Amino acid sequence: MKKTAAIIGGGVIGGGWAARFLLNGWDVKIHDPDPEAERKIGEVLDNAKRSLPALSENMIIKEGTLSFATSIAQAVTGADWIQESVPERLDLKHKVFAEIQKHAKDDALIGSSTSGFKPSQLQEGATDAAQIFVAHPFNPVYLLPLVELVGEPATTAQAKSVLETLGMHGLVLRKEIDAHIADRFLEAVWREALWLIKDGVATTQEIDDAIRYGFGIRWAQMGLFETYRVAGGEAGMKHFIEQFGPCLSWPWTKLMDVPELDDALVEKIASQSDEQSGQYSIRELERKRDDNLVTILRGLKARNWAAGAILADYETRTKPGLPNDIAKPLNTLNRVIPIDWTDYNGHMNESRYGQVFSDAGDTVMTMIGATPEYIAGGLSFFTVENLIQFRNETHPGERITVITQVLQAEGKKLRMYHEMHRANDDGSPGDLLCTCNQLLIHVSLETRRSCEPGPDMAAKMAALHEAQTRLPKPESMR
Amino acid sequence: MKKTAAIIGGGVIGGGWAARFLLNGWDVKIHDPDPEAERKIGEVLDNAKRSLPALSENMIIKEGTLSFATSIAQAVTGADWIQESVPERLDLKHKVFAEIQKHAKDDALIGSSTSGFKPSQLQEGATDAAQIFVAHPFNPVYLLPLVELVGEPATTAQAKSVLETLGMHGLVLRKEIDAHIADRFLEAVWREALWLIKDGVATTQEIDDAIRYGFGIRWAQMGLFETYRVAGGEAGMKHFIEQFGPCLSWPWTKLMDVPELDDALVEKIASQSDEQSGQYSIRELERKRDDNLVTILRGLKARNWAAGAILADYETRTKPGLPNDIAKPLNTLNRVIPIDWTDYNGHMNESRYGQVFSDAGDTVMTMIGATPEYIAGGLSFFTVENLIQFRNETHPGERITVITQVLQAEGKKLRMYHEMHRANDDGSPGDLLCTCNQLLIHVSLETRRSCEPGPDMAAKMAALHEAQTRLPKPESMR
Repeated sequence: MKKTAAIIGGGVIGGGWAARFLLNGWDVKIHDPDPEAERKIGEVLDNAKRSLPALSENMIIKEGTLSFATSIAQAVTGADWIQESVPERLDLKHKVFAEIQKHAKDDALIGSSTSGFKPSQLQEGATDAAQIFVAHPFNPVYLLPLVELVGEPATTAQAKSVLETLGMHGLVLRKEIDAHIADRFLEAVWREALWLIKDGVATTQEIDDAIRYGFGIRWAQMGLFETYRVAGGEAGMKHFIEQFGPCLSWPWTKLMDVPELDDALVEKIASQSDEQSGQYSIRELERKRDDNLVTILRGLKARNWAAGAILADYETRTKPGLPNDIAKPLNTLNRVIPIDWTDYNGHMNESRYGQVFSDAGDTVMTMIGATPEYIAGGLSFFTVENLIQFRNETHPGERITVITQVLQAEGKKLRMYHEMHRANDDGSPGDLLCTCNQLLIHVSLETRRSCEPGPDMAAKMAALHEAQTRLPKPESMR
Repeated sequence: MKKTAAIIGGGVIGGGWAARFLLNGWDVKIHDPDPEAERKIGEVLDNAKRSLPALSENMIIKEGTLSFATSIAQAVTGADWIQESVPERLDLKHKVFAEIQKHAKDDALIGSSTSGFKPSQLQEGATDAAQIFVAHPFNPVYLLPLVELVGEPATTAQAKSVLETLGMHGLVLRKEIDAHIADRFLEAVWREALWLIKDGVATTQEIDDAIRYGFGIRWAQMGLFETYRVAGGEAGMKHFIEQFGPCLSWPWTKLMDVPELDDALVEKIASQSDEQSGQYSIRELERKRDDNLVTILRGLKARNWAAGAILADYETRTKPGLPNDIAKPLNTLNRVIPIDWTDYNGHMNESRYGQVFSDAGDTVMTMIGATPEYIAGGLSFFTVENLIQFRNETHPGERITVITQVLQAEGKKLRMYHEMHRANDDGSPGDLLCTCNQLLIHVSLETRRSCEPGPDMAAKMAALHEAQTRLPKPESMR
């Protein structure tokens, strides 16, 4: 049955909630007295629509209907989930909850996006206190899965299972506490960051770099304790904490009350960590961590952003030269198979063979002048046909080398035959893994249609054609 | 000219430094009195060798020579970079530096991995104080690029340029301060986390989830201030901080001294943020953030880890059913093109067409019983040939649909013809984008050789063959 969500208070958070519900097939009714609300929410929805559906390998869009309500009453009537995201003033929230409860279904879930208030504060004076709970999300709500849930156990359990259908993770708190969990950390870091800026130790840029080039990437995949568990190594979490203990009395951060790290607390942390991660050995965790970090770093490299921009620069500086003897088969690529290229069979996915040949083709394109600058100028080559014949598997960590022979380089056409080999220790070609007969056509990026290359490129193509077509056909092709 | 690094003190950090230098072509000499040092460093190197080279699209390994020295003198003689990673005791570090400076070249760089001490403390009593500086890396040193550099400007500038050749980012501090920058944040969070555990508010698992499902992923790509700049929206960073200000006086984190957020500090932060990120509009930053988050989340999904495991579960739950009418061309895939599938031409990379056909082929495999459980049982299909013909471009955000016709399903052979189309609004096939003639062979995952499928699968294949080969050939194939 179709469900309905009511969003009270638009803005970035309310809009993010609206997108989550809407793109998972819920009907959504929004109430916000701001005359700009419709425009602002429209912008959040635009962002959500261009990113959320791309998270899935399937088409998950089954969009619900969005409408704007002129009153809280109109928005919440008949709604199954009501989400309050009004400004952080308790008196205002009390008024909004009173109005919501006057018109909502008795079994509606009433969540608050508050980042600071405890449910007991929100519930003051409510007609049905148990119905109101904290559902604190993280911006952008349409992409990040975390929602902190605080309230009556029966209510938060129900909320958690609804959130699961939206692809979100409800983290149910054991006790209510100001600012829940995550924002306590954010506040601690924020205060320390303000000190560093005020004291002239670091700028905003330097602080962001200190986070995103280092522990930020670790935390994205393991958080705090699992990261330390791995760092502690075989000696174990207990040993690690005991060692870390003394640091707490050092005068690093600004004045802060310090918990006494007595045996009971050490024991508590160590046993919780065992329960959390004890199914993996430290060695396994190290490899999972490294595979995750390689995946994140390679992803950011493709976006040329943060730590990925550092990698991209490094790659530009370490790029090998082009093959210089065009009278021989061309060595167009040498690399290691990365972990993010594998599939459920445990070997390199078939599509990544295509990636290898695409990259090998790029080397030849660069040789005839189709450089990044040339492409930026509006001309390029598009692939029109690949015949890929798979001979052997390859696995992450293996080194490969590609030998390419140009079969035709005339007019708009560039046809190549690539052989992908496992590389021997000296880099020379070993086992044949795959071949590709690849046809590229010179195109205008403006018209997106084929066109003749200019005289410079035509001359380079002619020379390559002349030298390469004299060579005997590769053995695997005969 | 070949460079040499001396690593004084092995362990996880020293071993990580050794790997960085070694895999970038430096010779490395290690001294550590621990009889287990060689084994421990060997383990770190094993991890580094399986992950660091995979960061690059080129073969960057040009491994140097590793040796173990029996004394500090032997290790540092002739070394260009000497890295101290001994335990965090100042008296011990002073002794080590005295011995290093007795034997090191005058122009050697002498870095310390200390996470807490200031260079002025390290330099006490040194023969050449300016030579000694803080070079604080982050574990795993062979993957994370950040190194905090603190010391004489001339020395740290030189160190920064060496680190660049190792693919690392030297963050030079303006002033020395206990624990530099990043570890001050780590300590603030660590203390708060200890309180939460001690007070029974959260477990280690819950704290890690609160980080890695939410702000941890944000920080991996933008850090703290750029994230808040985006959250602040068009109203600007100044407005955002002024609003955030009052929260600082709320009793969230445990007792901590609070900087006064006066006009001067607000102005300082706002102008630093403008300098850092002002070249992008908030809308541009939002889209960069979202593209980064989608990339990280999709990467983690492929690893089935952290927020990626939540996505993977969601995907399993939302997986569409299989085509049920085998007497018609089969609709084997419907999806949106994600941002991480694009290349320098701005459209979907040619290799990702292969990914689409690989996934479409999986649907047919599942229809004849080659399910994940079947594959886990040791049998599968491998692709042996793809003829891919590219007709049209596709761009991120576009919806596509694949129509597949089985050309042969007999014995070990499964041959399919896939048509990839842009999807119309109702999901029906629009423009033809690409075709693929794909041959799969049934294999044993034990022998990695072809083998006949069992009678159940053979019967399903026969039915599919019978129904599909009656159909007229697809128009694009004629």
